[in-house]
Amino acid sequence: MRFGTIGTGNITRQWIAASALGNLELAAVYSRYQEKGEKFASEYGDVRVYTDLEAFLSDTQIEAVYIASPNHLHFDQARRALLHGKHVIVEKPFVPTLNECKTLMALALEKGCMLFEAVPNVFQPALRTIQENLPKLGKLCLVTCHLTQYSSRYDAFLKGEVPNVFNPRMAGGALMDLGVYEIHFMCALFGKPEKIQYHPNLAANGIDVSGILNLSYPSFQASLVVGKDCHSENFCLIEGDEGYLKVDGSVSLLPEIILNGKTILTSPLVNPLNEEAKAIGQCLEEKRVDWMKHWWEATWMVTEVLEEARRSGNLPF
Amino acid sequence: MRFGTIGTGNITRQWIAASALGNLELAAVYSRYQEKGEKFASEYGDVRVYTDLEAFLSDTQIEAVYIASPNHLHFDQARRALLHGKHVIVEKPFVPTLNECKTLMALALEKGCMLFEAVPNVFQPALRTIQENLPKLGKLCLVTCHLTQYSSRYDAFLKGEVPNVFNPRMAGGALMDLGVYEIHFMCALFGKPEKIQYHPNLAANGIDVSGILNLSYPSFQASLVVGKDCHSENFCLIEGDEGYLKVDGSVSLLPEIILNGKTILTSPLVNPLNEEAKAIGQCLEEKRVDWMKHWWEATWMVTEVLEEARRSGNLPF
Repeated sequence: MRFGTIGTGNITRQWIAASALGNLELAAVYSRYQEKGEKFASEYGDVRVYTDLEAFLSDTQIEAVYIASPNHLHFDQARRALLHGKHVIVEKPFVPTLNECKTLMALALEKGCMLFEAVPNVFQPALRTIQENLPKLGKLCLVTCHLTQYSSRYDAFLKGEVPNVFNPRMAGGALMDLGVYEIHFMCALFGKPEKIQYHPNLAANGIDVSGILNLSYPSFQASLVVGKDCHSENFCLIEGDEGYLKVDGSVSLLPEIILNGKTILTSPLVNPLNEEAKAIGQCLEEKRVDWMKHWWEATWMVTEVLEEARRSGNLPF
Repeated sequence: MRFGTIGTGNITRQWIAASALGNLELAAVYSRYQEKGEKFASEYGDVRVYTDLEAFLSDTQIEAVYIASPNHLHFDQARRALLHGKHVIVEKPFVPTLNECKTLMALALEKGCMLFEAVPNVFQPALRTIQENLPKLGKLCLVTCHLTQYSSRYDAFLKGEVPNVFNPRMAGGALMDLGVYEIHFMCALFGKPEKIQYHPNLAANGIDVSGILNLSYPSFQASLVVGKDCHSENFCLIEGDEGYLKVDGSVSLLPEIILNGKTILTSPLVNPLNEEAKAIGQCLEEKRVDWMKHWWEATWMVTEVLEEARRSGNLPF
């Protein structure tokens, strides 16, 4: 299946590299700027370049659109692509509000199009390993998840620039950018939390550069730490009264799984989008609406948690 | 200086072992049960045994009293000891409420007696190492503190017994027993937090067997995890925008301090009460009321935080 991309960042490059595993073929690139679009497209050979979104979406050669623009544009671009009858793959975080999420899903059904959130960690085999081992932990007590990554854009931000990811009007911030991985991880394993409270560290412009998200489940507590203004060691500890499981490394990658101090799985360092591209490609090829709807449940839940978390922390919308 | 002890647990043995470093000499032991008291005293040679608290406190040979009874007894026993003109050392946590804390401090001043909270980590040289290195971290962003320790009494508790430490009427629980170390650590480094929210995991009898305490400081967030129903790895990560510092191991012991991945201090594995006994002993010997009042500030602050945390988590008092 041939697809076009919106967004010319590194994540788009990663997606294109992974997409072959899903029998997906890059056919066109959209960028607001001709030069930027051409430079990006030139990395991939014979690929059309558009600077007009309607023209791009009207290209009948393209069956699917991958969207990796700033977060606040996801909704409208996805909506327009669906209206053009395209299948749509939206980079995480899907859309900033549950209302937008519902609207897109309803439109996709109406148009008979497929719609996906591209979030790599839930497609990793390591997640299944964790799920299978949870019963060995006994009654769950605590989850401590830590994901801090000093942003390559943070120095510029400190100097007064406002990169997209630190722009409150673009639905940026640490929670939306990194917290989404932790929340997907938690929802995949434990479902929706009962109580949600985000304690952000806010910059002068109102964006959360870091913060701590508390999730209360009926029988255990979780603390999710995120930061784009600092970094140390990333991990997740899941503790029960009969044992503990550790993700050593970021929950966005799940590189190593440790049960009671003993490594039970290490994942090779490859393109983290491979598994996701494989699954989405197969889903598109086989028109597995049932798979898509199953993944929607996760996206729906995570969008709800993100929205509640942002409201609880008084973040701007 | 000669002292007597209240409480016959292991912490009392540790204190007695450490006390020589403070020129303190065990002279008497109080226990509610003659046999238990005699058995305990026999480990230490020529030591008087009392089962009557008034008689114990009336012993003119004893100048100081060390109290390591269940938490809810600390206040009344300390008060009575002060009324008998004894210096008093109270095991952590000092007393369950700020009101009791104020009452004891006022009484100590009135009686011209010295009064201490025995909490070992704030006397560790490692704490000063951390303080001195904080400026290297730049602007502080996040603190993630993790202290879980499967209680030796937890299996009995699960079987229906109610050991003191899991008894809500004795001011037990994970926060009072383990959280107090984390809170002392945080208050020593950063002062009193602006906002406090405890998310406990409650057992059927209302005691917190584990939980997560959120502390919000004006410019950064902290998450303190405690558990007596589970265990994994203990540590504290302090992250700033220019670097991070890690306590590898429990903040009750501060065994290893790591700055940006490099070990800068390891502390020998000795009796963790040694430094505290040395400091308290010297303070008593030299009648350093100024030192004592300085330590009171920490105890006062920590008692306030513990009380607010327990109220925020709807724990019983």
